[in-house]
Amino acid sequence: MTQHDTKTRNGLNLDQMGQTIEALKNDPSLARFQFRARNQWVNGGENRSSIQGFYGAGAEDESRAAPFVFTNGEPPVLLGNNEGANPVEFLLHALAGCVTTTTVLHAAARGIRIRSLSTELVGNIDVQGLLALDDSVPVGYESITIRMHIEADAPDEEIDDLITFAEGHSPVCNTVCKPVPVTIERVAAEKAAA
Amino acid sequence: MTQHDTKTRNGLNLDQMGQTIEALKNDPSLARFQFRARNQWVNGGENRSSIQGFYGAGAEDESRAAPFVFTNGEPPVLLGNNEGANPVEFLLHALAGCVTTTTVLHAAARGIRIRSLSTELVGNIDVQGLLALDDSVPVGYESITIRMHIEADAPDEEIDDLITFAEGHSPVCNTVCKPVPVTIERVAAEKAAA
Repeated sequence: MTQHDTKTRNGLNLDQMGQTIEALKNDPSLARFQFRARNQWVNGGENRSSIQGFYGAGAEDESRAAPFVFTNGEPPVLLGNNEGANPVEFLLHALAGCVTTTTVLHAAARGIRIRSLSTELVGNIDVQGLLALDDSVPVGYESITIRMHIEADAPDEEIDDLITFAEGHSPVCNTVCKPVPVTIERVAAEKAAA
Repeated sequence: MTQHDTKTRNGLNLDQMGQTIEALKNDPSLARFQFRARNQWVNGGENRSSIQGFYGAGAEDESRAAPFVFTNGEPPVLLGNNEGANPVEFLLHALAGCVTTTTVLHAAARGIRIRSLSTELVGNIDVQGLLALDDSVPVGYESITIRMHIEADAPDEEIDDLITFAEGHSPVCNTVCKPVPVTIERVAAEKAAA
């Protein structure tokens, strides 16, 4: 093994990974993260999020010089102009990325080198729920299927076990497949503007 | 009211909205949509999604000449280089957009003109779940709070009722707050490549 091989696996720095795990074992409070987004309605089905700061590892993160900005839109058949992907599509992107990163991370921890990994996601939804046309129809996705193509330096059964483990430890996957409380708080308008 | 006022509300075409609702009432099968994403791992915590086609309103959509492309990344504290927002942040973007669009849509249906709408989202998560350091810690978000600033031409109680209704009819909000089954299917490598 070259020095490079011993220091990174699947693009992850193994020394940093080990130090992070040790730090969290010594002080589990460092594992508490708070992520944030700000969103501004533009018009119709178009709105825009700005994502920059978060809290984690015991401190406010300051690694991002500028915010990430993403635009939600809707296709014409859903009354929009394709200003961006729509929110339920962005959810698929989040889910794909989380399952992938979780797989890559735990592969690295297990000593498995991943050569390639890609996914295809399909989510089924009935918009009678959104439109309040039929209360018996689920409002959210009915189901989401992820087809994963993976090539890795491990026997098939170890790869299968890795995927099952990743499914159980992916934050977005678990936010979707388990109920997570969402609260909407209306903020009173500024007194001055009232 | 000018002609313009009668045709659009909150940026939505009211004629098209009415026609869509009528069409779905006459043939509920048109309400079935299938959204899709393809994602390719790049390295470490970086991966990229491509989103273009979907099925809905009884046909394969062809309105997008090119795919939307989004990059997931991770900040340095999570072993990345800020290649993009991370998956749990993209989930907040999806949730913000969906609650906003659902609010705007049902406001239009109720005859409420929205003058401005913005949200701030905060999601709390303990990465001991992701890292499999403590099985008693939830893997997904523990909770998500949405603070909504809204100015609209309606009495306060009607706006409050609109927000509650939107929360109950937002597809992403319901995908998060209710359990949605996610299935990962491993695709066998091509025989030729084996």
